Amino acid sequence: MALKKRLDFKEYTQGIFDGNKIILSKAITLLESSKKEDRDISLALLKFAFPKTGKSFRIGITGVPGSGKSTFIELLGQKYISLGKKVAVLTIDPSSGLAKGSILADKTRMEELSKERDAFIRPSPAGMTLGGLHRCTRQAMLLCEAAGFDIILIETVGVGQSETVIKKLADAVLLLMVTGTGDELQFIKKGIIEIADIIVVNKADEENVQSAEMVSKEIQANISYQESDLWKVPVLTSSSLNIKSFDKILSIIKLYETTLSNDNLIHKRRTENNIYWLHELSKQYVIEDFYNSPKIISLITNLEESLSNDSIIPEEAADQLLKIFKPIE
Amino acid sequence: MALKKRLDFKEYTQGIFDGNKIILSKAITLLESSKKEDRDISLALLKFAFPKTGKSFRIGITGVPGSGKSTFIELLGQKYISLGKKVAVLTIDPSSGLAKGSILADKTRMEELSKERDAFIRPSPAGMTLGGLHRCTRQAMLLCEAAGFDIILIETVGVGQSETVIKKLADAVLLLMVTGTGDELQFIKKGIIEIADIIVVNKADEENVQSAEMVSKEIQANISYQESDLWKVPVLTSSSLNIKSFDKILSIIKLYETTLSNDNLIHKRRTENNIYWLHELSKQYVIEDFYNSPKIISLITNLEESLSNDSIIPEEAADQLLKIFKPIE
Repeated sequence: MALKKRLDFKEYTQGIFDGNKIILSKAITLLESSKKEDRDISLALLKFAFPKTGKSFRIGITGVPGSGKSTFIELLGQKYISLGKKVAVLTIDPSSGLAKGSILADKTRMEELSKERDAFIRPSPAGMTLGGLHRCTRQAMLLCEAAGFDIILIETVGVGQSETVIKKLADAVLLLMVTGTGDELQFIKKGIIEIADIIVVNKADEENVQSAEMVSKEIQANISYQESDLWKVPVLTSSSLNIKSFDKILSIIKLYETTLSNDNLIHKRRTENNIYWLHELSKQYVIEDFYNSPKIISLITNLEESLSNDSIIPEEAADQLLKIFKPIE
Repeated sequence: MALKKRLDFKEYTQGIFDGNKIILSKAITLLESSKKEDRDISLALLKFAFPKTGKSFRIGITGVPGSGKSTFIELLGQKYISLGKKVAVLTIDPSSGLAKGSILADKTRMEELSKERDAFIRPSPAGMTLGGLHRCTRQAMLLCEAAGFDIILIETVGVGQSETVIKKLADAVLLLMVTGTGDELQFIKKGIIEIADIIVVNKADEENVQSAEMVSKEIQANISYQESDLWKVPVLTSSSLNIKSFDKILSIIKLYETTLSNDNLIHKRRTENNIYWLHELSKQYVIEDFYNSPKIISLITNLEESLSNDSIIPEEAADQLLKIFKPIE
């Protein structure tokens, strides 16, 4: 099958259900398209995939650039694969700018993992990011689930106040920190730490082990206010040089998954998140519809002219636009 | 006149045109209201004020918390007043949370300036901030202009990637930095420095003078790529202990103002900004209209229920909402 050929709906769905990584990747590219005609087939794809979604565990990995997210994800992914899991990694490709996501890009960042038959690594283009994720990361995740991946690792671009959106996507958020950067205090101050379900002090390598242990104890002492009856956010250390540290991380993730399954908390969290996305998508669509209206486009041109002549204020201009964009009630 | 009494339209406009600071403040509180009935009178007020706006010079002051923005603004304001200018300061009151802006709040932060007859200090409540400013800061600025203030100083909450919105409001953006914080590099890396028209290394006090001078030279060397034919962003130093440093700052601001008046660049910048605001306000209004529609509200309730039952995906739910929210064409 030639890569360039446009697939039809059946080829997409069949390929996804077969776990065909090339077709899965092409389907995600379709989701990421902003063309109106692609949006309809995307929605159809998602509806079709829907019954097969929801069975994976969704793990978000966040942390400032330089906290070692890529290496951490590679090792975590390999660990899961060694346990017989199928692992999909959704990342943002920092090198891609506004270009379309490449099927082959970003392989160098997670070279070993990308060679695994049971791994799928999908870097989405930066530039379309929203809150540290691609605006279609959630939808890409659903397609990966339909393709049979049972662990989804979602990497954010970095950490910032706007990056809490990972919490609306993942079942578990892992926050990676490194010692000696002063991040600890900043994160606590800015409330970033509040999105974490599990905190990992990374790069606890050889000479850093002691300081990492100290920092992790400090953080633990500082986040006690965040404890709930159900889950006390644990602070672990990790080193890419010590693959054993990942056993502990995996078992804590498993423990969190078990905790979430009590009283069906995971379903509650996912429903809350879906409601959040309903509102986000509605806002996105209503603005798209507004800008797709020919009457609006034509009036905007006139109003921009009036603004240049100082004959109107933006508030009045916006008011005029809204007057011709009325819903049928 | 009792403060609590609800003013009528004529009292507002008369009070604003008379430069009555209490009425001006009440009018800004009205703008900040999210009540639908207040929005209509706000628009009427802005339309009425419009012919008297645009004659001030609008100066945005940004910088991380701790960079000394308040003291800097107080001294800058006093300097302008000593030159016979009327100065309005629009700030965000960090202590106010979600409460309404208080007429008397925040006086302690700029005690001397607040005593001046020709100064007006308006702290708006935090919590309603958008990109480091109150969502109505621009409108408050217009009313201040109508009230005869000829220098508007706009203080942002802090500095962040989302705080570039000050550039869409101010004629000149002053970025305050302090030495020894490592901000310099961060700002250059994150592109924050690109919003600055003038950079001020603040707290160049006595023992810090030399290091401040050094930092300012370093920054200057690092931003040469930002130079245009029209304006080379200058890097100054400033100290609240040395009021003389403000003479230089004022003359540079004046120079920038003069530069902007060449080829009517200031009008071009303001028009571009007004077009930006037309789009921002339209998006805000269209979303408000969407959520004000009773049919939408009722369907949302049903769809949230369906999401809880896993019988629909958010994309499809949003699509259904948009189908009943159709513009008349």
